[in-house]
Amino acid sequence: MEPVGRVVRHFQEELEQLKTRILEMGGAAEEQVRLAVKGLSDRDLDAIDRALVGDGPINALHIEVDNRCFTLLALYQPMAADLRTIVAAVKINTDLERVGDLAVNIAEAARRYAAHVPVKKLIDIPRMASIAQHMLRDALDAFVRRDVDLAQQVLNEDDRLDELKTQIFRELLTYMLQDPATIEPALDLILVSRHLERIGDHATNIAEDVIFIVSAKDVRHHAGETPA
Amino acid sequence: MEPVGRVVRHFQEELEQLKTRILEMGGAAEEQVRLAVKGLSDRDLDAIDRALVGDGPINALHIEVDNRCFTLLALYQPMAADLRTIVAAVKINTDLERVGDLAVNIAEAARRYAAHVPVKKLIDIPRMASIAQHMLRDALDAFVRRDVDLAQQVLNEDDRLDELKTQIFRELLTYMLQDPATIEPALDLILVSRHLERIGDHATNIAEDVIFIVSAKDVRHHAGETPA
Repeated sequence: MEPVGRVVRHFQEELEQLKTRILEMGGAAEEQVRLAVKGLSDRDLDAIDRALVGDGPINALHIEVDNRCFTLLALYQPMAADLRTIVAAVKINTDLERVGDLAVNIAEAARRYAAHVPVKKLIDIPRMASIAQHMLRDALDAFVRRDVDLAQQVLNEDDRLDELKTQIFRELLTYMLQDPATIEPALDLILVSRHLERIGDHATNIAEDVIFIVSAKDVRHHAGETPA
Repeated sequence: MEPVGRVVRHFQEELEQLKTRILEMGGAAEEQVRLAVKGLSDRDLDAIDRALVGDGPINALHIEVDNRCFTLLALYQPMAADLRTIVAAVKINTDLERVGDLAVNIAEAARRYAAHVPVKKLIDIPRMASIAQHMLRDALDAFVRRDVDLAQQVLNEDDRLDELKTQIFRELLTYMLQDPATIEPALDLILVSRHLERIGDHATNIAEDVIFIVSAKDVRHHAGETPA
């Protein structure tokens, strides 16, 4: 039994390290989103610059996490829930890397926006950002703790992001129609709201993966609603 | 040797079936993009409606491909290039599902656009669509044929999409500044150009995965340029 026991213990240790790296990556992605949106709201060029270059650590972690997943699959040939966890980690890794890219896109829009007279005081965009960051954090906590209820909460939050996005669009369209000088900066705010919506989508993907890991139940495309 | 030979043969047959399903999914996604952009360009409400509901088969294939990948990993415990192929299939599956979602987004924009007077005759957007569809097809062919040169060509195409997107943005901004009646429909064209750019990004992801499968060389984040 001893060699098997040792292999299992190593596997669990490696799996914990994988989860730790994913949490680190999530923390870095969340911070980058926070900086980009702060840069936009406060016209803080320093925050914008930091968000623009901030995906370096995330990209390094992206490659490291992928390698760890390959090593775990090749060395330990895990089954059932462990296999699902590692395949989910591969997907979550991709999601987090995209969140880093989206933070860069937000920072790019923020830099252009800062060159114009502000269209309005930003309230709904920071609110969207706060919801999206929260969804991301909860989705990753749900992954690490295998918490299906928390993952389900993340799925429920997505509608709020969608409503705010629609509201932001309508309001900015009114500004654009009234004053052509607002067209260019308002366009960037609309793009930022779309980027934040997509960050919420990535958190949703992660939450769906968590439900699949724990319950082996596929909640994508309402797959759970019809008999397999 | 016979049982091992049989297992290997079954594995290779299963792997071929997996690749066939991914090609089917790619074909369905490409057709959905084609319909959505045709609907936009020709104000063809029938094509728009078909694109709007067209992701059903893609979503069904998404779940099937994921299940096939799990089964292959659990039953055959593949190593090296086979393991990389299956993990890549998991990622490609996600990419193709998103392409289906993006086609729906394009069709939604097309439906709104059709309710307005056309801003202009569309030339660059169908061109972007054609490049993006081509990139997707080449990336999947490269995956099935393990063709690194073709994958590299896909990576090179991405710059053309980016240039067209910038050009479309500048041109539409001019229209919007000159005539407020164009603001709302032009916004939808800008969103469509972003969706098409993202379809190109998904093709790029697939091409990067192909290079990784064949050469075990990571071309993401310029990882190949520095010693590991």
